[in-house]
Amino acid sequence: MASVRAHLLTIGDELLSGDIIDKNKAFLGQRCRALGVEVVRATTVRDRRGEIVSALREAADDAQVCLVSGGLGPTTDDLTVASAAAAAGVGLVRHEDLAARLEAFFQSRGRELVEANLRQADLPVGAEVLANPIGTAAGFALTLQGHAGPCVIYSTPGVPREMQLMMREQIEPRLRERFALRPVPRRVYRALGRGESTVQQLVGPVLEAARARSPGLAHMFVHYRARYPEVQLILEATPGPDGDQASAEELASLDRALAEAIGPALYAVAPDEGPPELDALLVPALVERGLTIASAESCTGGGIGFALTSIPGSSATVLGGVISYANQVKIEVLGVPASTLEAHGAVSEPVARAMAEGVRARLGADIGVSTTGIAGPGGGTPEKPVGTVDVAVATADETIYKRLRIHGRRDTVRYASIRWALKLVWDRLGVEVVPRPDRRPPS
Amino acid sequence: MASVRAHLLTIGDELLSGDIIDKNKAFLGQRCRALGVEVVRATTVRDRRGEIVSALREAADDAQVCLVSGGLGPTTDDLTVASAAAAAGVGLVRHEDLAARLEAFFQSRGRELVEANLRQADLPVGAEVLANPIGTAAGFALTLQGHAGPCVIYSTPGVPREMQLMMREQIEPRLRERFALRPVPRRVYRALGRGESTVQQLVGPVLEAARARSPGLAHMFVHYRARYPEVQLILEATPGPDGDQASAEELASLDRALAEAIGPALYAVAPDEGPPELDALLVPALVERGLTIASAESCTGGGIGFALTSIPGSSATVLGGVISYANQVKIEVLGVPASTLEAHGAVSEPVARAMAEGVRARLGADIGVSTTGIAGPGGGTPEKPVGTVDVAVATADETIYKRLRIHGRRDTVRYASIRWALKLVWDRLGVEVVPRPDRRPPS
Repeated sequence: MASVRAHLLTIGDELLSGDIIDKNKAFLGQRCRALGVEVVRATTVRDRRGEIVSALREAADDAQVCLVSGGLGPTTDDLTVASAAAAAGVGLVRHEDLAARLEAFFQSRGRELVEANLRQADLPVGAEVLANPIGTAAGFALTLQGHAGPCVIYSTPGVPREMQLMMREQIEPRLRERFALRPVPRRVYRALGRGESTVQQLVGPVLEAARARSPGLAHMFVHYRARYPEVQLILEATPGPDGDQASAEELASLDRALAEAIGPALYAVAPDEGPPELDALLVPALVERGLTIASAESCTGGGIGFALTSIPGSSATVLGGVISYANQVKIEVLGVPASTLEAHGAVSEPVARAMAEGVRARLGADIGVSTTGIAGPGGGTPEKPVGTVDVAVATADETIYKRLRIHGRRDTVRYASIRWALKLVWDRLGVEVVPRPDRRPPS
Repeated sequence: MASVRAHLLTIGDELLSGDIIDKNKAFLGQRCRALGVEVVRATTVRDRRGEIVSALREAADDAQVCLVSGGLGPTTDDLTVASAAAAAGVGLVRHEDLAARLEAFFQSRGRELVEANLRQADLPVGAEVLANPIGTAAGFALTLQGHAGPCVIYSTPGVPREMQLMMREQIEPRLRERFALRPVPRRVYRALGRGESTVQQLVGPVLEAARARSPGLAHMFVHYRARYPEVQLILEATPGPDGDQASAEELASLDRALAEAIGPALYAVAPDEGPPELDALLVPALVERGLTIASAESCTGGGIGFALTSIPGSSATVLGGVISYANQVKIEVLGVPASTLEAHGAVSEPVARAMAEGVRARLGADIGVSTTGIAGPGGGTPEKPVGTVDVAVATADETIYKRLRIHGRRDTVRYASIRWALKLVWDRLGVEVVPRPDRRPPS
């Protein structure tokens, strides 16, 4: 079975001028790999019709699929539709159903529809509409004839959210239907509390033994993705030259040994896309246990609350929190004794504990979580340099505490503090990441 | 003077599989724009010799400069040197000074130098070395002959830190020396409260009149960048075919008319990279005025606090805030009367006002800002659908209030609410975005 070759084409001046980092390219590449589609080239061109047409023609001559993102907006520098039509040698046709949808869309929002907006209802003749349930720019699929055969271009908006939904819901089913794709099973392990090279070292012997065990596992592709303070270990069952390929079950059979190797830093394992972020794990776990939570944040400035409340249904567990940026707020709202602040400073174990216990009591929550630290760039001292952050988690029976030493800039310090705080709460829940086969799950 | 055309070429399987987001492309694009080098295309290819050679030849035929990143490591899938030599039709030559440097480098780290490492001392015949003071991979400059003339390729490592240093210290001086570069002035207008197509329509006549006024302005490039609820209008003084190019002053001369066209949605104007985000404008403006601020957040869950405290120095103005997710917190911590909640519901004008006034009083701030709304996906009613958000800003003299109707998913509703809340605070400061020439600035 020959593999399916794909080009990626991202369109927009802002991608070439560096105004925007091209994350769409990475997303599309990831999805293609999971599908078993081989991306051989990615091109980015400006919002110029001739340049877009050239790139589409080149893709048509080299690949069977071209995934396009960008240039579908209502303004005059949105040229993907006209360029695709020119590349195919066809004209445009107005889709009355799309026009009606645009009119309804604008009416429902009380906004005036101007003629430019209706351009978004025009597509190349022969194009198939790819619905966009969350935006005004419909996508489309259109077949170009290349030197070596047909190439289908799938055009999506540049807005990441819209592009991603269209890729998952509209394009991937079409690719699966059109081509005999062999998907690549994946398994993703998420850890917080160990560095990338440490994780690599810890799991090395486990993976080596696995490779020796079966020809499928021998060919699996292992990679590590780090976003400090988290590390992901990703196993991909890429096929070997003889077609040997590990199954999803074979990958999962490594869970127990990998969990033991990584230790308590490991917090979740899942196939394919992998486990969600910690906040998305934590909220349902809290709700399930009937626990409420409240945050007391200094250096993270509301980031823990914002992360937890990003999850739908979080109102069943999040009572709220206090952003106690100024010491006066720590004292007056959270009840941290002024003498404790005076004696130990705002970034100290006693203050972190008092904040977590204070917000727990003040808001009547089961769990209180606090952060106080030096995010930088100023404010560091030799004893407490920038990146010193104290985190505490208070429950009815005890308050746990951890001092972090984070290296990096202000946003890194804040981000890492939030993830660490969530991890400490997660650890308090005692979730078994990989249940032991010889034990019953806790009731 | 014709502009200098450049291609960017990033090399590596990991860029096409989405394992790595291609930030090098954005960095190189930014530097080029600032230099006055016009990036017309970016290509990413795999670690395959034939594919790299093709991309280099295409660049040589279309551009005078090709900035290459990646493929300079010591392993067998690092093929940039061999590919560049093939594209130029030359062989490789070992640079003994680079070999000696590699040997010293390995020795100083107590690591064994293997033959593969010495490959990093081989460069195409005729290439000029670009020093890499912080890594083992030297870069190089090599001239290829294209259809329309010579094209210089500048090859850098894929490691961002090494690539960035090489670009700044080695490549940019060479580009300035080789070409008579003319930087492209830009002007960026940021607005919140008008959609992308509305902004386009409003400024249309102003831009049309400007184009008719001078040959430089006639060739300026106009684009719009939207991140709901914000829109940026960007003017770029790209040169016309006869070299006509608007100056930075000419672009700035449009400020007054554009500000009048866009109206109060416009909140900042700046040249080049444009104005920073609202939070980065707001914090220094508050500090300058000696004003303190506190937030009372329901649906935004801490996001306003997190945004404000992302700015270094925010502790001089941000006292903190209350995340009043549960009604009980609104009542007990913010002092919202239970009867008001009962009578009007949590998402209502009286509650938004009471929250802003309550947090202002409770924390002793000059300004209180509040949000209460339905972020979704659940919780909407016919009268108050998902996306209904009430925002209030309380100061000593008055409390202003606005009801938002945001369309989108939970994260969009929350993000837009935060930006709107910051915009309302910004508006309260009465900053004149474009000072009227006929008025003195307010004292």
